[in-house]
Amino acid sequence: MKAARFVMRSASSLSGAGLVPREVEHFSRYSPSPLSMKQLLDFGSENACERTSFVFLRQELPVRLANILKEIDILPDRLVNTSSVQLVKSWYIQSLMDLVEFHEKSPEDQKALSDFVDTLVKVRNRHHNVVPTMAQGIIEYKDACTVDPVTNQNLQYFLDRFYMNRISTRMLMNQHILIFSDSQTGNPTHIGSIDPNCDVVAVVQDAFECSRMLCDQYYLTSPELKLTQVNGKFPGQPIQIVYVPSHLHHMLFELFKNAMRATVEHQENWPSLTPIEVVVVLGKEDLTIKAGFGYGLPISRLYAKYFQGDLNLYSLSGYGTDAIIYLKALSSESIEKLPVFNRSAYKHYQMSTEADDWCIPSKEPKNLAKAKVAV
Amino acid sequence: MKAARFVMRSASSLSGAGLVPREVEHFSRYSPSPLSMKQLLDFGSENACERTSFVFLRQELPVRLANILKEIDILPDRLVNTSSVQLVKSWYIQSLMDLVEFHEKSPEDQKALSDFVDTLVKVRNRHHNVVPTMAQGIIEYKDACTVDPVTNQNLQYFLDRFYMNRISTRMLMNQHILIFSDSQTGNPTHIGSIDPNCDVVAVVQDAFECSRMLCDQYYLTSPELKLTQVNGKFPGQPIQIVYVPSHLHHMLFELFKNAMRATVEHQENWPSLTPIEVVVVLGKEDLTIKAGFGYGLPISRLYAKYFQGDLNLYSLSGYGTDAIIYLKALSSESIEKLPVFNRSAYKHYQMSTEADDWCIPSKEPKNLAKAKVAV
Repeated sequence: MKAARFVMRSASSLSGAGLVPREVEHFSRYSPSPLSMKQLLDFGSENACERTSFVFLRQELPVRLANILKEIDILPDRLVNTSSVQLVKSWYIQSLMDLVEFHEKSPEDQKALSDFVDTLVKVRNRHHNVVPTMAQGIIEYKDACTVDPVTNQNLQYFLDRFYMNRISTRMLMNQHILIFSDSQTGNPTHIGSIDPNCDVVAVVQDAFECSRMLCDQYYLTSPELKLTQVNGKFPGQPIQIVYVPSHLHHMLFELFKNAMRATVEHQENWPSLTPIEVVVVLGKEDLTIKAGFGYGLPISRLYAKYFQGDLNLYSLSGYGTDAIIYLKALSSESIEKLPVFNRSAYKHYQMSTEADDWCIPSKEPKNLAKAKVAV
Repeated sequence: MKAARFVMRSASSLSGAGLVPREVEHFSRYSPSPLSMKQLLDFGSENACERTSFVFLRQELPVRLANILKEIDILPDRLVNTSSVQLVKSWYIQSLMDLVEFHEKSPEDQKALSDFVDTLVKVRNRHHNVVPTMAQGIIEYKDACTVDPVTNQNLQYFLDRFYMNRISTRMLMNQHILIFSDSQTGNPTHIGSIDPNCDVVAVVQDAFECSRMLCDQYYLTSPELKLTQVNGKFPGQPIQIVYVPSHLHHMLFELFKNAMRATVEHQENWPSLTPIEVVVVLGKEDLTIKAGFGYGLPISRLYAKYFQGDLNLYSLSGYGTDAIIYLKALSSESIEKLPVFNRSAYKHYQMSTEADDWCIPSKEPKNLAKAKVAV
């Protein structure tokens, strides 16, 4: 709490007593510009231009930060005023201001380019705890007052957009840092965090092994993997797509952890555990991964959606759950999915108090007695 | 067309030159009252009261007809003015007027009760061709002008609601007819069209055999059924729920037809056809049926949704498709899902021209050249 108060004071020097700098207002008027996988690769290709990336990011990152800051501000006052959400806001405002400073610098200035990389690293580290801090804010808010279902729904709407916004800004910052930082730490066959030949089955196997280690430690047993792969595009070849392996690993690891827990706990007294079945199918336009017996977390779904994919769970209560990850097989269709703060988003927070356009079934429906007639 | 013109003239005597009788306005102000499965059963129980059902239906059916008539009227003029949609409208108005006449009758009047059953039969038969006629209207409209994506989306929204409304009015009419008609034609163990002990696996097998006959006739071959059942509520017992077997049969038959076609056509040169796998699972709250390799029709999904279930398709492009039907296992949760014409529904038709609250990914995203700097 001491740390929180300190950072809030530091941010308050920027934003005044709850006031938001005019830069936030300015950049929130732009819509974010979704990049395609191809454009992300272009930044890291042989004729990669650090200055182009610098000029793009010093504009685009403040736009994305400002868009989501506007959305934070229309959350319920009692939530925005929690110390946790104030802390998160202060990080976003501080980072926006740090980045805006580079609008005064020339892209020809080598020192500015190198300072920019340092600033991106600083911003990325500053935002490290955004997810748990925001979650803490929601807990504080829910503890302090009863939250009606409409507000709950608005919160879910907000969180999906907030986390997606964060995935996107981290992606852009990481790409610039990995490609243009002096310390080459990335995988040489990757473009930043993107693998142009991401071997999907290898990522599945790796995520499975990571999860299996945890499972063995905790339960002293773990299910086998039964993997089927179908390459409908190039039969017999390994299945490769242009993708961010760490995102795919995140989704699969979450699903495998849950699948293993469900398997071990439900089959405690069985002679042997049923294997976790994974089917990887590369179609003409879609890559599909089906992981039997799992259930996953909302953030994994956001990772899938970030490049226009999806992650769905289909539960057969008491029997098992299928999880299906869809990803675009064509990198030309892998384009960032980004929330934008506009009239439609604003209205979304306002209008949910209206009546549903379907009758709301009550568990105790209309008393038909009033339709009854005296005999 | 001659028939259409005739009926339109007959309806025009009621509705004037496109005018809608004030009864439609009156009844559209009420919201439909969704019935639970339990209430539907009560109408047919031993102390079933025909007068109660009569008094309820002479009010509720006009309400449901009027609600959807109002929604037809806000469709694009060029669609509403097609002869097909005019014909459909005339049926709805005529039926509403036929039913409203019974508001003058006493429920103690045996003749009125018996006339009411006849009227329900007449109304049901009049509406027999609603689905193809409405479809014809949409075709005429789409032939006559280019339909933009927003209008197309509104049409889909409308059709889902229109067909759901029709499923519900047919259900109510059929229940009254089957229970109170003199000619007992229904299954004696059923309450109207509801089987209080619907044997799900028997319906699956029956729908499979029906589809298989068609498949054998057309392709001279057909896949086997591989059926797994898990009763998580009463292990070892047959799986039974309170449901309308004809609705379940409709969904399964559609899915099986499609699954068989996909199997036979994709496996033309295979030594043998892979079986269609069906898993029926009764959980504490859900019944789930999973039909491998199928794809289905929107109306089947509406049947599932009508009693708060769902039907989803999960396609692994080039590999197969899973269809999952969810139904409520508890009859207390099987409550009609009904569209209501209110401000929210009205606004739905108006607002879709607004911007999306997510950035719309263009296949040719932002030209980054403008971010490039002179070297």
